[in-house]
Amino acid sequence: MNEQIKAEIRKLREESKIAYVASVNAEGYPQVKAMMVLEHESLTTHYFSTNTSSNRVSHFRNNPKASVYYCNEADFKGALFTGTIEVLTDHATKARFWSDGCEIYYPKGVDDEDYCIYCFTADTVNYYHNLSNATLDAKEL
Amino acid sequence: MNEQIKAEIRKLREESKIAYVASVNAEGYPQVKAMMVLEHESLTTHYFSTNTSSNRVSHFRNNPKASVYYCNEADFKGALFTGTIEVLTDHATKARFWSDGCEIYYPKGVDDEDYCIYCFTADTVNYYHNLSNATLDAKEL
Repeated sequence: MNEQIKAEIRKLREESKIAYVASVNAEGYPQVKAMMVLEHESLTTHYFSTNTSSNRVSHFRNNPKASVYYCNEADFKGALFTGTIEVLTDHATKARFWSDGCEIYYPKGVDDEDYCIYCFTADTVNYYHNLSNATLDAKEL
Repeated sequence: MNEQIKAEIRKLREESKIAYVASVNAEGYPQVKAMMVLEHESLTTHYFSTNTSSNRVSHFRNNPKASVYYCNEADFKGALFTGTIEVLTDHATKARFWSDGCEIYYPKGVDDEDYCIYCFTADTVNYYHNLSNATLDAKEL
């Protein structure tokens, strides 16, 4: 049963161009933003790129609690991963996710100090499809 | 300037079939779920229908802090409303948002105790389009 759910979650993540990344701000309010899906190698670790100067980076530096949500609205499918985000600024990680065209946003290139990477690590994932609903431990993924 | 931004936010909300509704769970993690947009009368008050038995209802009863996010991924536009959610279970509110077909989810009809309404009240809204970004007080909406 879990193998089938895992396969469905993997497919949903692979097919998603956008994920919804949530933080908790300094006043305790949840905040959401659509972010581009850069890779889909693993179900437990997910990477996103963003501006170091953004408000959200300061949220995660103060409070790493996060969730990452993938959904297919047309098919009523969704996978909500809950875990933590670490903000990475090392050259190797930044170079790994750099691609042609990023210069528009980060004119100084890979080492532009305004370019950084979120490394999200899942603790659990809740998957639903129509009215069925299951929560898996990330260790099972 | 604010009038133009307000018009853009209103259009985004009107054109959205889905909004992303975020809560903070008992362990302090942000949680997100796609919900159907039922109406778009006001920019400060937004209503959604859900199952009273869902985990999220207990999140909001314990902690009303919420956000509601509308986005147009293709055009890089998004409006993130931040505020609070009240869970309403009175007959008049439930009847207002009832529609044919709801019986599939709530077999007892409008007064099914598993059917309830979120009333979200915005304090602020952050709107972005490409690289421009503005935050408005809900009193200005």
